[in-house]
Amino acid sequence: MKSSSDEEVRRISGGVTAARGFLAHGVRSGLKRKGPDLALILSEVPAAAAGVLTTHRLAAPPVRITRGALRAGRAQAILANSGNANCCTGPAGERDALSVRQAAAEALELPASAVLIASTGVIGKRLAAGRILRALPALIRGLNRSGSSRAARAILTTDLTTKSEAVEVRVQGRQVRVGGIAKGSGMIDPAMATMLCFITTDAVIAPPMLRRTLRRINEETFNAITVDGQMSTNDTVLVLANGLAGHARPLKPGVPGWEAFSDALRRVMSRLARQIVRDGEGATRLLTVRVDSARTRREALHLAKAIANAPLVKTMVRGRDPNWGRVAATVGAAGVPLREDRIEIFLSGVPVFRRGAPVRADGRTLKTRFSRPHVSIEIALHAGSAGAAVETCDLSEGYVRINAKYN
Amino acid sequence: MKSSSDEEVRRISGGVTAARGFLAHGVRSGLKRKGPDLALILSEVPAAAAGVLTTHRLAAPPVRITRGALRAGRAQAILANSGNANCCTGPAGERDALSVRQAAAEALELPASAVLIASTGVIGKRLAAGRILRALPALIRGLNRSGSSRAARAILTTDLTTKSEAVEVRVQGRQVRVGGIAKGSGMIDPAMATMLCFITTDAVIAPPMLRRTLRRINEETFNAITVDGQMSTNDTVLVLANGLAGHARPLKPGVPGWEAFSDALRRVMSRLARQIVRDGEGATRLLTVRVDSARTRREALHLAKAIANAPLVKTMVRGRDPNWGRVAATVGAAGVPLREDRIEIFLSGVPVFRRGAPVRADGRTLKTRFSRPHVSIEIALHAGSAGAAVETCDLSEGYVRINAKYN
Repeated sequence: MKSSSDEEVRRISGGVTAARGFLAHGVRSGLKRKGPDLALILSEVPAAAAGVLTTHRLAAPPVRITRGALRAGRAQAILANSGNANCCTGPAGERDALSVRQAAAEALELPASAVLIASTGVIGKRLAAGRILRALPALIRGLNRSGSSRAARAILTTDLTTKSEAVEVRVQGRQVRVGGIAKGSGMIDPAMATMLCFITTDAVIAPPMLRRTLRRINEETFNAITVDGQMSTNDTVLVLANGLAGHARPLKPGVPGWEAFSDALRRVMSRLARQIVRDGEGATRLLTVRVDSARTRREALHLAKAIANAPLVKTMVRGRDPNWGRVAATVGAAGVPLREDRIEIFLSGVPVFRRGAPVRADGRTLKTRFSRPHVSIEIALHAGSAGAAVETCDLSEGYVRINAKYN
Repeated sequence: MKSSSDEEVRRISGGVTAARGFLAHGVRSGLKRKGPDLALILSEVPAAAAGVLTTHRLAAPPVRITRGALRAGRAQAILANSGNANCCTGPAGERDALSVRQAAAEALELPASAVLIASTGVIGKRLAAGRILRALPALIRGLNRSGSSRAARAILTTDLTTKSEAVEVRVQGRQVRVGGIAKGSGMIDPAMATMLCFITTDAVIAPPMLRRTLRRINEETFNAITVDGQMSTNDTVLVLANGLAGHARPLKPGVPGWEAFSDALRRVMSRLARQIVRDGEGATRLLTVRVDSARTRREALHLAKAIANAPLVKTMVRGRDPNWGRVAATVGAAGVPLREDRIEIFLSGVPVFRRGAPVRADGRTLKTRFSRPHVSIEIALHAGSAGAAVETCDLSEGYVRINAKYN
């Protein structure tokens, strides 16, 4: 139910520094072969903080440290490096991460727990913490109100483009802004979390409500994309809400502006998620997989992901080949109970399989529609009323080239 | 425990017609664009029969029909076509498969239930049964004692080479022969079954014992290989044992020759399985993944398959890149409980990660060993005493090329 004060969500510029009171910057510390590799986001005042972090069993030290810090529900800064994931680095890796956080906190005159950290890059290599420490003064000096794009560049690894988004919405008579930056590219298949994504907002919202909202929207956005079915050790989504929009009543269900704010956050997260898929390693075309009328959302999502991650499906998208038999082969192998005489399969809206038998489709229409830059596969199981959608990209020779020559 | 009559397993020629009383042939019916596409294997006398068939939820009509026929435990012929999987073809597909079986049985003067059938190829396209019916007379006329290689060719799809194996072993003073042919290439990741594989033997063995033995050895052989993590709708392993070796006591545990026979069957199946991996679509290099000291074999196998199927691992094998961080990333994402401070990772025998921290490895040795045509990844979990091994191939640009242009 929409509250009466809801208004249109307007896209604005500014990314992670679009919201009031947020500064950012990015510099080169030397962890990557070239380009900036160290990013800092700072709120001028303490902020409510929440995150969704990888469920990977070898979660990196920065993930574990940030998970601990988030328990307080408040933070003021996010420090992130690319070029090194600081993962599988043992007790030394933990010490390195803590020392980097400590140095940043001292330079920013904040308690260490107010600084959230994140790392991305090569796994299993000791972090050159000294380089980060030497780069910190310039990073902090450079913090500014339009530093989002520098910060967005500094968190990239094999990404080809920066990912940034910001929107504005009216809440209780005030302008509330939500913005974010992200990085993705390879190893994208979050199980409960995702690649790096940092979101800021000046909304007034209590930490528990911020956490709940982030988790809910994360399920529909970052948890519904996949590039190659690989969960990362360092997946991190963080949000800081500093309250500087100044509306009177903290946001929660039932309060004016609640729907507008949720909608704004959802737009930012879903657009960043889609940007990540578009920039998937070697991606040439986009695929949306929808599963409908499943018994449970869990089964629908499992099946949609199985299809989105199947190499035979991803290569048929690459080849613009509407070979739906490969979709059927994946549907039946996914372990989800189904009845052959009930399921329907559509390729970009064209029915190809219905109640256990092929549909005589117009081959020309099928071929034309399945050759578009963004195609879809829809499955109806007719077993219940749950559904789920997953976005992914194709599997191209480019993916192999990038990943056979990464190190 | 080996019985005293056990002897060496000797490799012989002859493939699926190496055993006494088996004939085979392959002809072109026109289901494929070129080459033979219809194979027949016949035992001159009724044989004990057993099979392992796909657990796919959209199992093709020929799979369902053969599953039914195998309940009797006896059969005499195997008819297989390539070029069309006759899957997702609805009631018409079922009728087509039954009519083909019926025609073959009549021409061979056998009951329909004595003819096992199998199909491989495109999914969702109606089977041109008429072509098979027209080709049957020539197929049956051509049956001969050295027809194995023709039959082996006729079951191929995107395979580059035929797969054939045969061995001889002494059982109770008689020579027992076991031979087989197989096809694989794409969509190889059997869950309880596998691609097409037909085995014949002249051993004397009762159907229930044959079934049990086949299932056990299948777990260690065909169920331990993967090319691209895709289970097929048509996976079929069949064995016919016609008893013409004439040894007195039917084979079972405790009977002389039992171990020798099991060993012979295992060699044939494991060599055919390895031939399938070597000929994986686009394969340029082989990878064996071993997981040891797991809590259960199930967990060990699950983890080994997760590593063997991870695109980031398969591309690093392609690139001869000993980037073990990708292995660690896959280990932790597989959902198997593990303790970072216990696990060890080796690349082709070189330790790279131990008890939560990287091992300073000799980079030169590592690079040299990991550049060989057959590399390995070993994981020790130190959580129990179970283990499992999986064989796979790399993921190359060739896999994408083949699968983006298959139809």
